[in-house]
Amino acid sequence: MIGDEILSGRTQDKNVAQVAAWLNRQGIRLDEVRIVPDDEGRIAAAVNALRSDKDYLFTTGGIGPTHDDITVDSIAAAFGVPVVIHSRARQILEDYYATRGGLNDARLRMARVPEGADLIENRESGAPGVKIGNVYMMAGVPSIAARMLEALDGTLEGGRPVVSMTVGAYAPESEVADLLRATEEAHEGVAIGSYPFFKDGRYGANFVMRSDDGELVERTAEDLASRLAEAGIEPFPGGI
Amino acid sequence: MIGDEILSGRTQDKNVAQVAAWLNRQGIRLDEVRIVPDDEGRIAAAVNALRSDKDYLFTTGGIGPTHDDITVDSIAAAFGVPVVIHSRARQILEDYYATRGGLNDARLRMARVPEGADLIENRESGAPGVKIGNVYMMAGVPSIAARMLEALDGTLEGGRPVVSMTVGAYAPESEVADLLRATEEAHEGVAIGSYPFFKDGRYGANFVMRSDDGELVERTAEDLASRLAEAGIEPFPGGI
Repeated sequence: MIGDEILSGRTQDKNVAQVAAWLNRQGIRLDEVRIVPDDEGRIAAAVNALRSDKDYLFTTGGIGPTHDDITVDSIAAAFGVPVVIHSRARQILEDYYATRGGLNDARLRMARVPEGADLIENRESGAPGVKIGNVYMMAGVPSIAARMLEALDGTLEGGRPVVSMTVGAYAPESEVADLLRATEEAHEGVAIGSYPFFKDGRYGANFVMRSDDGELVERTAEDLASRLAEAGIEPFPGGI
Repeated sequence: MIGDEILSGRTQDKNVAQVAAWLNRQGIRLDEVRIVPDDEGRIAAAVNALRSDKDYLFTTGGIGPTHDDITVDSIAAAFGVPVVIHSRARQILEDYYATRGGLNDARLRMARVPEGADLIENRESGAPGVKIGNVYMMAGVPSIAARMLEALDGTLEGGRPVVSMTVGAYAPESEVADLLRATEEAHEGVAIGSYPFFKDGRYGANFVMRSDDGELVERTAEDLASRLAEAGIEPFPGGI
């Protein structure tokens, strides 16, 4: 994720959750996120560190028409290739802007790609995303990033999607820690996360069971709910 | 930032923006964010990579009472020190839980710190944050993290706070890219970020001027508003 916008605290990020949820549906686990400033060296270093280590790398932000949009240049530098105008991207922009004032120099910037890159379709606003190797460059605007993800649906190699079920309780985590650990130990292959909250003046937590085995997740959730009830704590299946 | 919770897409992160805004008020720039899974090796590696390279490192999440709270252990491993019970933390927890069912084993987990660590006051819910070297471990629950940051107000060494002003416009970025670049070049020392949005069916962007020189920021914002108006685009001081 690329952006002074996020690091300055000005904009509340929405892309991490959106990309994570989409990856889950593809059967892929989001393994790490880095947010770095609008700086070519920093972007290139982060991209090179992650692309060699992970199956896929998604970037959001910095592919627009303005002077602070430097993602394409930075990733070209990371791959050690020049930036070129992609002919189909140019055509897409010409068509898109034909009725919107024409293709000026700033708009043409959005046809620039690292040499050898492919495009990611943008059903929202013309300017495409860019893919080179296992790196996917997407827009920073969440609604546009969402449409680019849509266009990538089913194109990545995923495993079995992770299934999750949630049980919530208005009880401090510290009262149910032993019970949780025992439940997790009783169901090998499930990870239970405990996510505390403070809501309407009460402390509570949601307990999330995750596994790629849906039936196992279901059995574990039922077991946890029974154990909570036995301990005198009302379980909320589905979470709070 | 530590948490399967965020990486699974289940929880929309709020701590990045909160920590960034707080750091700005201390005159410190947030330079990078990493979100890693609940895995001791991964947490330790990220902490060691960042703590040596940055002035301060803040972590959020994973300091509660449950089995998946492994931040303290991971950071102790990163520093190569054992985990010990902090006597004042134990006292704080004993006092806090005196009227709340007493200090059980799970709750006592929250008194565990890397050897040599200090506490960060938690005015919200008892269990303190933990500080070792330049690493600050805070709660993942945003309201609790907020109170821990409050307790740290003015304790870090900051520079002049960065001042920002925003001018918005309902115009595609691609129409104003040249104008923006020219405005930035006319005011040395100011960085202008351009943040596009899609709102109420219209495209637009907010242009954010940032510098530690408040007057310069103000002059630049005024200049940008004039240039936009001259180009026939209504400027919205304060942003949209």
